[in-house]
Amino acid sequence: MAIKPLSDKVLLKPINTPETTKGGIIIPETAAQTEAGQAQEAEVLAVGDGRLQMDGSVMPLIVKKSDRVVYIDYGGTQVHLEGEDCLILEEAAILAILDS
Amino acid sequence: MAIKPLSDKVLLKPINTPETTKGGIIIPETAAQTEAGQAQEAEVLAVGDGRLQMDGSVMPLIVKKSDRVVYIDYGGTQVHLEGEDCLILEEAAILAILDS
Amino acid sequence: MAIKPLSDKVLLKPINTPETTKGGIIIPETAAQTEAGQAQEAEVLAVGDGRLQMDGSVMPLIVKKSDRVVYIDYGGTQVHLEGEDCLILEEAAILAILDS
Amino acid sequence: MAIKPLSDKVLLKPINTPETTKGGIIIPETAAQTEAGQAQEAEVLAVGDGRLQMDGSVMPLIVKKSDRVVYIDYGGTQVHLEGEDCLILEEAAILAILDS
Amino acid sequence: MAIKPLSDKVLLKPINTPETTKGGIIIPETAAQTEAGQAQEAEVLAVGDGRLQMDGSVMPLIVKKSDRVVYIDYGGTQVHLEGEDCLILEEAAILAILDS
Amino acid sequence: MAIKPLSDKVLLKPINTPETTKGGIIIPETAAQTEAGQAQEAEVLAVGDGRLQMDGSVMPLIVKKSDRVVYIDYGGTQVHLEGEDCLILEEAAILAILDS
Amino acid sequence: MAIKPLSDKVLLKPINTPETTKGGIIIPETAAQTEAGQAQEAEVLAVGDGRLQMDGSVMPLIVKKSDRVVYIDYGGTQVHLEGEDCLILEEAAILAILDS
Repeated sequence: MAIKPLSDKVLLKPINTPETTKGGIIIPETAAQTEAGQAQEAEVLAVGDGRLQMDGSVMPLIVKKSDRVVYIDYGGTQVHLEGEDCLILEEAAILAILDS
Repeated sequence: MAIKPLSDKVLLKPINTPETTKGGIIIPETAAQTEAGQAQEAEVLAVGDGRLQMDGSVMPLIVKKSDRVVYIDYGGTQVHLEGEDCLILEEAAILAILDS
Repeated sequence: MAIKPLSDKVLLKPINTPETTKGGIIIPETAAQTEAGQAQEAEVLAVGDGRLQMDGSVMPLIVKKSDRVVYIDYGGTQVHLEGEDCLILEEAAILAILDS
Repeated sequence: MAIKPLSDKVLLKPINTPETTKGGIIIPETAAQTEAGQAQEAEVLAVGDGRLQMDGSVMPLIVKKSDRVVYIDYGGTQVHLEGEDCLILEEAAILAILDS
Repeated sequence: MAIKPLSDKVLLKPINTPETTKGGIIIPETAAQTEAGQAQEAEVLAVGDGRLQMDGSVMPLIVKKSDRVVYIDYGGTQVHLEGEDCLILEEAAILAILDS
Repeated sequence: MAIKPLSDKVLLKPINTPETTKGGIIIPETAAQTEAGQAQEAEVLAVGDGRLQMDGSVMPLIVKKSDRVVYIDYGGTQVHLEGEDCLILEEAAILAILDS
Repeated sequence: MAIKPLSDKVLLKPINTPETTKGGIIIPETAAQTEAGQAQEAEVLAVGDGRLQMDGSVMPLIVKKSDRVVYIDYGGTQVHLEGEDCLILEEAAILAILDS
């Protein structure tokens, strides 16, 4: 069974970042939470087709399946998919894409 | 007697998800509620014709009758239809469509 | 004397739904009120001509006189019309049309 | 001295509705106030030229001088005109026009 | 030294209305303040060139220099001009123009 | 080193207005603060290029370098420039231009 | 590993400004925080491609890589990049560009 996010929503699988990565990005787990929530890493599992515009066209999302992203878990909704804790949230909650 | 949701509203029949499904999606009933409410599964019973646009056209909904969806019960309204507890809410409260 | 709702407003006559209807819709009077208010049934007595758009055109309403509707009494205004307690509210407060 | 409401504003003279009118509309003075205020009757004394649109055109008002209307006194401003207590408020506060 | 209001702002000189005017408008100083503030009379001393629109054009103001207006002192800013207490506020705070 | 405000922001150097000016504008330092803050005088040191519009064009600012303005210090940000206390804020916080 | 901000977001490396700079800009670290936060200096490390417009086009950002900027840390999100504390925030939080 697959899950297809609606509109501008994305399905993410959070990644537990090792505290120290050689030359990489570390999102400190002990960082004081900012007002807009704490940054976390995730893999994009599925994306919606984009937001329907008023003229009937669809604005596609920027992130795509398999992207590794930095996001803020603010207003997201937890779902349990094939034994994994996943998250559905709007693309606007994604801050950046990590290029490996 | 049938019921026809207005505009961008949908009529849902909530589904009690078994706690463990083989290879499927589990929305934990004990999950801590996020700020935007708790995810639940439902079957779509009826949908509105779409939201009227400012230019007079109608933006049709994405979900359709018989779709199985994940939604957040936030601001929905309960109605009792042929012995079943159903729910009317806006399509924006639907997070994803489940493909079986 | 008649009453003509303005713009996107409608005049409703609430219907006291019998608690049990054969094969029909029951809106439980004891249902816990949701955040957006409690659903009720009504007959549409009169409708406005629609909302004036910025380009000067008018977006007509979806419901029409004699429709039986499910609505939420939220922000509505009570008026007394020919011995009946009626209600004026915006069409956006109407959730669905009941087809008999 | 005359008074000309600006833009989408109207000048109203509230009417004290007799508690019982033969076959007419009664707005009960003892009605519990709804969240959006209590309905009252008034005569329209003067109307603005309409709201200036972003393209420079003007969207004219629906109500006109001498109309008898049902309105909600919410955010209106009292003025004293030739010995009468009057009220200036936006047309959006008018719910319906009474046809006699 | 002159003062030129910006955009959709106007410079007003409040007028102390005599409590009783023959056949005129009286804004009672003892009136209970409505939610949106208390109405007052003023003379328009200067007006802005209008609000810049998104297409680069300018939407001119309705009131002009020397107009006598009814306004609500809500969010206005006091300035002292040549010995007079004046007020700068947006045109939207002006309710009506008084024709003498 | 120079500082270039972004978009619709301006850099201001506040001016301490003498309490009494012959025939000029006095912004009383003891005036009760209005809800939207207290008016102050300033010289414009630098302005942004204007706000980017949705169609890609830029809406230029009204005020320009060396203008003397009346503004409300609401939401502004203090910076220290060459020994002077300056302020960066949006042009919308400027109420009027003073013509000398 | 590189990090690419999404849409209208930028990646900043905050700069600790020496308290006194010859002829330069000093953002006092002891300044009372304004309502919109305290100004700080930073170097721009990476920028998003711009905000997707409703017509499908992209509105590019004003700041670019290597720009030295004044910003307000309000709603920003901390990330740890190659041993440095960095910050992701929207371009709207940037007040000015410093020209050296």
